[in-house]
Amino acid sequence: MANITKKVSWSSRDEDSAPGEGTPLLNGTSGAERYPRKMSGSGMFHIGRLSTVDLEEPITEQEDALLNWPKEIPHNEKLLSLKYESLDYDNSENQLFLEEERRMSFVGFRCVEIKRWVVCALIGILTGLIACFIDIVVENLAGVKYSVVKHSIENFTEGGGLSISLLLWAALNSAFIMVGSCIVAYFEPIAAGSGIPQIKCYLNGVKVPRVVRLKTLVVKVCGVICSVAGGLAVGKEGPMIHSGAVVAAGISQGRSTSLKKDFKIFEYFRRDTEKRDFVSAGAAAGVSAAFGAPVGGVLFSLEEGASFWNQMLTWRIFFASMISTFTLNFVLSIYHGKIGDLSSPGLINFGRFESESVEYYLYEIPIFMLMGAIGGILGALFNSCNYWLTIFRIRYGVPLCLCLGSSMLGSKTPAVEAVSVISKERSTVPVVGFYKIAFYALLNERNIIFLNNAALFCRTPCKGKMLHDVASGSYNPLTLGLFTLSYFILACWTYGLTVSAGVFIPSLLIGAAWGRLFGILMSVLAADESTWADPGKYALIGAAAQLGGIVRMTLSLTVIMVEATGNVTYGLPIMLVLMTAKIVGDYFIEGLYDIHIKLQSVPFLHWEAPHTSHSLTAREVMSSPVTCFSRMEKVGVIVDVLSNTSTNHNGFPVVSEFTDDGEPGKICGLILRSQLIVLLKHKVFVERAHSRLNQRKLQLKDFRDAYPRFPPIQSIHVSQDERECMMDLTEFMNPTPYTVPQETSMPRVFKLFRALGLRHLVVVDSDNTVVGLVTRKDLARYHLGKHGLEEMQLSQT
Amino acid sequence: MANITKKVSWSSRDEDSAPGEGTPLLNGTSGAERYPRKMSGSGMFHIGRLSTVDLEEPITEQEDALLNWPKEIPHNEKLLSLKYESLDYDNSENQLFLEEERRMSFVGFRCVEIKRWVVCALIGILTGLIACFIDIVVENLAGVKYSVVKHSIENFTEGGGLSISLLLWAALNSAFIMVGSCIVAYFEPIAAGSGIPQIKCYLNGVKVPRVVRLKTLVVKVCGVICSVAGGLAVGKEGPMIHSGAVVAAGISQGRSTSLKKDFKIFEYFRRDTEKRDFVSAGAAAGVSAAFGAPVGGVLFSLEEGASFWNQMLTWRIFFASMISTFTLNFVLSIYHGKIGDLSSPGLINFGRFESESVEYYLYEIPIFMLMGAIGGILGALFNSCNYWLTIFRIRYGVPLCLCLGSSMLGSKTPAVEAVSVISKERSTVPVVGFYKIAFYALLNERNIIFLNNAALFCRTPCKGKMLHDVASGSYNPLTLGLFTLSYFILACWTYGLTVSAGVFIPSLLIGAAWGRLFGILMSVLAADESTWADPGKYALIGAAAQLGGIVRMTLSLTVIMVEATGNVTYGLPIMLVLMTAKIVGDYFIEGLYDIHIKLQSVPFLHWEAPHTSHSLTAREVMSSPVTCFSRMEKVGVIVDVLSNTSTNHNGFPVVSEFTDDGEPGKICGLILRSQLIVLLKHKVFVERAHSRLNQRKLQLKDFRDAYPRFPPIQSIHVSQDERECMMDLTEFMNPTPYTVPQETSMPRVFKLFRALGLRHLVVVDSDNTVVGLVTRKDLARYHLGKHGLEEMQLSQT
Repeated sequence: MANITKKVSWSSRDEDSAPGEGTPLLNGTSGAERYPRKMSGSGMFHIGRLSTVDLEEPITEQEDALLNWPKEIPHNEKLLSLKYESLDYDNSENQLFLEEERRMSFVGFRCVEIKRWVVCALIGILTGLIACFIDIVVENLAGVKYSVVKHSIENFTEGGGLSISLLLWAALNSAFIMVGSCIVAYFEPIAAGSGIPQIKCYLNGVKVPRVVRLKTLVVKVCGVICSVAGGLAVGKEGPMIHSGAVVAAGISQGRSTSLKKDFKIFEYFRRDTEKRDFVSAGAAAGVSAAFGAPVGGVLFSLEEGASFWNQMLTWRIFFASMISTFTLNFVLSIYHGKIGDLSSPGLINFGRFESESVEYYLYEIPIFMLMGAIGGILGALFNSCNYWLTIFRIRYGVPLCLCLGSSMLGSKTPAVEAVSVISKERSTVPVVGFYKIAFYALLNERNIIFLNNAALFCRTPCKGKMLHDVASGSYNPLTLGLFTLSYFILACWTYGLTVSAGVFIPSLLIGAAWGRLFGILMSVLAADESTWADPGKYALIGAAAQLGGIVRMTLSLTVIMVEATGNVTYGLPIMLVLMTAKIVGDYFIEGLYDIHIKLQSVPFLHWEAPHTSHSLTAREVMSSPVTCFSRMEKVGVIVDVLSNTSTNHNGFPVVSEFTDDGEPGKICGLILRSQLIVLLKHKVFVERAHSRLNQRKLQLKDFRDAYPRFPPIQSIHVSQDERECMMDLTEFMNPTPYTVPQETSMPRVFKLFRALGLRHLVVVDSDNTVVGLVTRKDLARYHLGKHGLEEMQLSQT
Repeated sequence: MANITKKVSWSSRDEDSAPGEGTPLLNGTSGAERYPRKMSGSGMFHIGRLSTVDLEEPITEQEDALLNWPKEIPHNEKLLSLKYESLDYDNSENQLFLEEERRMSFVGFRCVEIKRWVVCALIGILTGLIACFIDIVVENLAGVKYSVVKHSIENFTEGGGLSISLLLWAALNSAFIMVGSCIVAYFEPIAAGSGIPQIKCYLNGVKVPRVVRLKTLVVKVCGVICSVAGGLAVGKEGPMIHSGAVVAAGISQGRSTSLKKDFKIFEYFRRDTEKRDFVSAGAAAGVSAAFGAPVGGVLFSLEEGASFWNQMLTWRIFFASMISTFTLNFVLSIYHGKIGDLSSPGLINFGRFESESVEYYLYEIPIFMLMGAIGGILGALFNSCNYWLTIFRIRYGVPLCLCLGSSMLGSKTPAVEAVSVISKERSTVPVVGFYKIAFYALLNERNIIFLNNAALFCRTPCKGKMLHDVASGSYNPLTLGLFTLSYFILACWTYGLTVSAGVFIPSLLIGAAWGRLFGILMSVLAADESTWADPGKYALIGAAAQLGGIVRMTLSLTVIMVEATGNVTYGLPIMLVLMTAKIVGDYFIEGLYDIHIKLQSVPFLHWEAPHTSHSLTAREVMSSPVTCFSRMEKVGVIVDVLSNTSTNHNGFPVVSEFTDDGEPGKICGLILRSQLIVLLKHKVFVERAHSRLNQRKLQLKDFRDAYPRFPPIQSIHVSQDERECMMDLTEFMNPTPYTVPQETSMPRVFKLFRALGLRHLVVVDSDNTVVGLVTRKDLARYHLGKHGLEEMQLSQT
């Protein structure tokens, strides 16, 4: 039944296995140039700047060498990339670590605990401030843009020169988008898109290169400001989540590697375990700031990332979320001159429900579920279109200028449409960004949902007037249909371009549009339209259905929607709609984020092992043979193994002795590449006579200072004399790595691996002899296909 | 620093270690009568019926034998009881299990998945129906009671005989409480209290005897109806959570052991892993029905029980919660004649906020936090009083009749007070249950919070009238103060009596009362009382503070409160208040549920190992020596080991061979007592010549049929001939139990144990030889005391 071929050929390419014998003395130079360890410039999820890779004609080595360009992975979802490494969620409990922990008193632990709370508070405050900054800058830039266009219209309309104003508008939009697009493409391609897939990967335990760096944050913030101010069909919510995560990763380390500034604080948190926990808090704070949904933020973090639920951790995450919403509200209340009014949280706000119009009845439940199904189908359609578009962009290497052009086109279309729609509606105020009018108008006088920005706009007289123009029922179904269609195409086209932009707001807009259309249809069908068929209600349900159909989040999205609407009455319908949308959508295709994760060949671990994987045991899953070291290892051997770029292992079991034919013996520890590099850098060598060469005892601090950007092995010079020295690994290795016997079933291995967030799991036989090593890629390779269990291949790069 | 003594003396009393050699041939009869394995009648948390245990004078063995009464654990929080066993959250992946899993096709797994959803839907429906049943019966019983009293008042008031009506009222209340108390005390003592501590233990992985049985459910439901109808200072919310859990445990097994009815469905779910997941869903459904808070329910389950967050599981739990709220709403809407109106969920409902009165300002945040601190202090006071009261009740064995009397007194006092307060208020309608009037009146015209029941009451004319009597500001501070004080004492006294009753509603009432008092104080202090100092708002905050101070739940309680108020505006203040209350309260004493768990000496595992436990390793923590079996073991040896009631082990490592001096060799599996008992029962013996005696191959079904009430070893007769046979354990043992080396630090052991929900963890040396076994009790023993790490002792029983 299970469609498995015994793995033979990949072992040499797996992250943590060596093709050779117990202690292979490999030549460290071969291939070092060909496979540079850090592929700088090869960001994840940036689509526009990719080099052309033709799947049918593999580039030969000569060509490759000539091009001298980081080879991109071929973006085939049946492959797993070797580019992504795992985070080490499991502490390496070596002697240094244990000594430190044992030295710490109870008061010391209390201090660390208090520091954690302080860090979470800082994360919340900074994330909230960033959200404020984005909001205020976007508002002002858009204001400038609108006033320029308005001035132009006022001057030209009498002369009939509306087309010139239109061109001006388009030119301004294009300029914004051009700037936003260029910063992202040339400075930090990983800042493209919403950032949610990357954060999802990070929380899953994948170290995505450069995803939590300061540069990424700066580019992201500038990029999203430009995209939104440029009037693209995008939202600023997704990027907020990414921003929160970067803030968390930065603050918790108490230093900035980019700025070369070390504040010498929070040194205890300089390891993957703590960092990942803080990044969860940061992502939650981002959600909280974006949607005004602190509980939704916590659930988002847990749904996407949690291995193990811990009450105190959850509580801290919640605290960060809360502080973030609070900061945002407070600063915005000052900015808007209503100091201290904290009752309208979040960048997006669906407004308040009036008590009379919120009731729903039992017979509406099936209607809602039908809408959920429609949302699921439309979401699947959106995802499929975006999938093929992405594949197309990757395969035919859409050049940058074309991307930029299409971005600008994307911004022009709404402008053109806005004018046409508005002239049709006989309104005279075409100065507000089209989709803001549209969304606000969709929900017109009932004001079930409206963008905060639109609400702000309404404060100035000329926009307040517009509200009255759009009277009840004045919105005609044809316009709604046109809006849905055009916006669907635009949003689908935009997601995946080199701009920082989220997909939440476009999805909500599309859903609200067809939801309202549906509502109008209902009220036409129903005899008495006034009692129950309120189109505004259907707009809300439609928005939920569409968003659920695209992103397929479950519990967290429900809570986010409920918190953003500010009313729990619609909790039940929203849940039902999201559930229906997910079930229907999953029948066709995966969620948008999962598609993009797969296309990047990330070794993503799901919650459970594939159902039919009980037929596999650790013996089949593991990589073998394994490169091992002995407790007292020759420096030359270590340098050679680390330099061997064709294997590029990150974890090495330490064994007590080797057999005569070079096979590893009993396991006595596990040491990481990063630890070995620090040891080599500090030259912690022992001469043959067991006298320590380097007198200074290495401390945990040395490892923390090097974290997280450990130097590459190439940068460490080891002389020929030093190569003959020995290194004593006993003190630095993790003496108690988790091990499993060979006969362990794959679901059991998977559960252990996933629940504890492991990076390496040693497989031993009944004598505790090392026989293999299980890493993330070994487990992520297996997935359920149409013909039962399938095995993915590892990509060449 | 760590205050640890090397353990020597307890090893013989640990759950899973033997005092003897590798395969001790102990006489299975000694002590079997003295320590009956199932201590029937010794429920958890029933306080009234305990036999007098004097801590100072230990009962000698002779006396013990004479008494022939199950010895109660001495209820000292420094002890751990041996009565409680662990759940096996980790599947025993033996050959039978793996064969079944491998036989199952992809479609088969789909079916199981669909069955899980069906079970969750059923859990939701049944829990909702039970909530409806309780609600409707209470309402009708109370209605009958009130009409009788009202009739009496109408007849006697002219003659001034109000005291007779008062006596009648008290007598009726007493009758209800007497009935409720007796059912609980005589039929199922474990049904006493709210049931939340028991469910918390169950979700933590402790098998609490009889907690999820049908009988418990029936007694609980009847008990809570009587308590609430009798006018005790109790709520019906806690018991709903317990009820939901019992429903889940029952339905998921597809049979009732009590009714001897097997529906032959859901057989796949007959193991601890699946059952515990369903019980989580049941508890969530209970919360959801009680508070109309589906998200709060999910978070409650996760906060109290989750080891490992799984998206699909969470989603299913959410589904059950949702269905439960829906069922409750739907049935109640029919009952109240408003079919299909689903917008007021839950048994309790805090009513709607009016948009104008909900705003709060920045300067109110410190006031709210101050109220949180007051709530924390009052909560700690409540918990301390209840703690000493419980200790007193246990130590001096308060006889049943006194308990009953005090229960009745508890019910009389509010009646007396009601009349006095009401006469003081010069109101003429003293026929409504006092605390319902009180609570409703506390929040008077602003109607921020009111009990659903009170709202229902208001539908009948005479109660509607009362609403107008209690005009704005008519509630005087003296009455509020009196109410807070008397209700505080009453609620504190009531919790721990042999009645089924929750502490949520009393806490909310107390908090609302002093909160309103606080609000009145504020508005007196403030110059313009109309603008911000709305006492109703402070009543809500006070209620949250008091409840948070008593139960110390965090995220879940916030969400429950937000969902019950139906408005997210107060999310932030409620969070802050709960956080402050928890921090302040934790400074003094633990939460109420934790206190009662500790008093019952339950081996409860917290989220993390104590901070300073890095100094301990598995070698110190484990129990040793361990009773092991060999793969092919003599039946007599197994029977003797199982019959040895002085050790009463539940898990036995299986080793490949024994050394000459009886020491166990390399580990090759782990077998459970329950599995051995099934094997013995079916006589799966092999003669010396290795021919199988019993021809029928044992199947997984045989184990599932026996689950969860495996017969005691005493009930299995093994003849002298059979004792000489052998048993082949290979097929039935778990061949890949999790193992750790001896040097593993305690936090690492703890994390593995807790994250995977283990029951036994085998400690091995470098040769994979069994050296010890870690069980729940070994880990739960260590806790952080005032002088660093402390070690608890194991109780004698």
